[in-house]
Amino acid sequence: MKLGELGERKIVNDIIEKFSIPYDDCAFIDMNDEYLLITTDIVYEKTHFPMGVKPYHIGWYSIAVNISDIASKGGELMGFVSSIALPRNTEKDFLDEILNGMEECMKKYGGKIVGGDTKEADLITIAITAFGKVKKDEAIRRKGARVGDAVYVTGWLGRGASLLQKNYDELLIIHPRIKEGRILAKSKNVSCCMDISDGLASSLYQLMKINNVGFQIYASELPLRNIAKTMENPLEYALYHGGDYELLFTLPEEKGERIERKIACKKIGEVIEENKIYIVEDGDKKEMENRGYEHFSHNKNY
Amino acid sequence: MKLGELGERKIVNDIIEKFSIPYDDCAFIDMNDEYLLITTDIVYEKTHFPMGVKPYHIGWYSIAVNISDIASKGGELMGFVSSIALPRNTEKDFLDEILNGMEECMKKYGGKIVGGDTKEADLITIAITAFGKVKKDEAIRRKGARVGDAVYVTGWLGRGASLLQKNYDELLIIHPRIKEGRILAKSKNVSCCMDISDGLASSLYQLMKINNVGFQIYASELPLRNIAKTMENPLEYALYHGGDYELLFTLPEEKGERIERKIACKKIGEVIEENKIYIVEDGDKKEMENRGYEHFSHNKNY
Repeated sequence: MKLGELGERKIVNDIIEKFSIPYDDCAFIDMNDEYLLITTDIVYEKTHFPMGVKPYHIGWYSIAVNISDIASKGGELMGFVSSIALPRNTEKDFLDEILNGMEECMKKYGGKIVGGDTKEADLITIAITAFGKVKKDEAIRRKGARVGDAVYVTGWLGRGASLLQKNYDELLIIHPRIKEGRILAKSKNVSCCMDISDGLASSLYQLMKINNVGFQIYASELPLRNIAKTMENPLEYALYHGGDYELLFTLPEEKGERIERKIACKKIGEVIEENKIYIVEDGDKKEMENRGYEHFSHNKNY
Repeated sequence: MKLGELGERKIVNDIIEKFSIPYDDCAFIDMNDEYLLITTDIVYEKTHFPMGVKPYHIGWYSIAVNISDIASKGGELMGFVSSIALPRNTEKDFLDEILNGMEECMKKYGGKIVGGDTKEADLITIAITAFGKVKKDEAIRRKGARVGDAVYVTGWLGRGASLLQKNYDELLIIHPRIKEGRILAKSKNVSCCMDISDGLASSLYQLMKINNVGFQIYASELPLRNIAKTMENPLEYALYHGGDYELLFTLPEEKGERIERKIACKKIGEVIEENKIYIVEDGDKKEMENRGYEHFSHNKNY
């Protein structure tokens, strides 16, 4: 059996089971009254970046996606180690621009690179590991959603539409919700949270499995990015395309208003008991499809 | 200017300067009375692994080289995150054998994988980040060598010779000196230490620069692996080839005997004031060449 026939999520599931890894955005490492948070993401020239993308974008994105994972656990960012593999014929200026993208993202969102490794490869591959910390009583996990909780999302959805327009500033200069994550953590009201890198639908299905609950989501409540609104079917981009890096979280209904005053976020639905995910559109309720951006899959959205 | 014209060490130096990264095997992160140690290594199918190497070897090696960095700072191993990029047409069995290699290495030397990322790529690329901890008063750095200190190395040198014999068990099933590193740390006598992944000469030149000292090394004292002894010029493999992953350390002359009773190690020379590195062979003293295994370099040893 080849990996291409299995798909990313099956492969990841197998690894997670083999090593008994808890299914979350970061690992939680016990450090007295805090958790050390640690997460890694590997980005690969050919898979992640359309032809013609700028090296600055690659650098920014590779740091930002890792910050997003720390953000989703309510963490404070501490730093990064970076493993960079590059072709021998890469121009030094190109590498410098990757590093500039990394640097600018860190200037804006915090953390610093404390170590790394640089090797030769045929195509650009960057693996960043971010680490941070969170007080134990503020930590937010993927598990914890309760029936009746409100479902929220930060910011706006549908960034994936920018790929079609080759708007790489919009697609790749993502703004991880590290400040919002800290506010959610300090509120101590959030029952579960993850970032939605592979699409809202895919994230909801992952939370459904972990929490043994379901979700009812209202299409009219989804906060759409302007770039998605220009498309024929904005919902397609909001639900099934990757690249949004917003925080998807649940909390008791009555706590929502207070959070809404503090950060840009929107209630999009509620947690239900039935193990299904419904999308309600124009009074019509149907099951949300379980698809999203997946590596090794034959059905990529981008 | 292309990276291939610069060579790995120049590229790494530029990155280190840009981000003000201290030059050591691990980053040291302040955590009350301990340091969090964090390090990353990226291994790439084509660069690191000769054709025909087993996936089990790849898995073991990718974990072991990271353990070696924690070992060189005297650290206790805590865990790993793994970023794995693989071609879509990789057989699932092949991935499973990589994971088995990782697992066996962790069973032997400690730590567990607490998180990761899996993506698609054209060639196998594995970036492991290891983290560990060390008490502040036990931590060992690259900087600290004093004139007159004895120079030691653990184990045996010249593993690189096994490549020529296609003995991949010898080449890649490396045994990181994590136990030895802890003993050195607890002794509180070691003045500096690093692991010698790119060859003894290369490591000595790095320590020379950091410590503003020199070294005099005795060829007759170098502990050679059996596989190197079978070669026409064993010294070539002991000094200039990568892959040994032994600990190179310095300590006051009079503390050496006690350490020698506790771990397999050998005195190979001493720290001198002059900023030069000499190798003494058959009464003949000459400067050691400043070369070793280097990525992006046109002059690879393997």
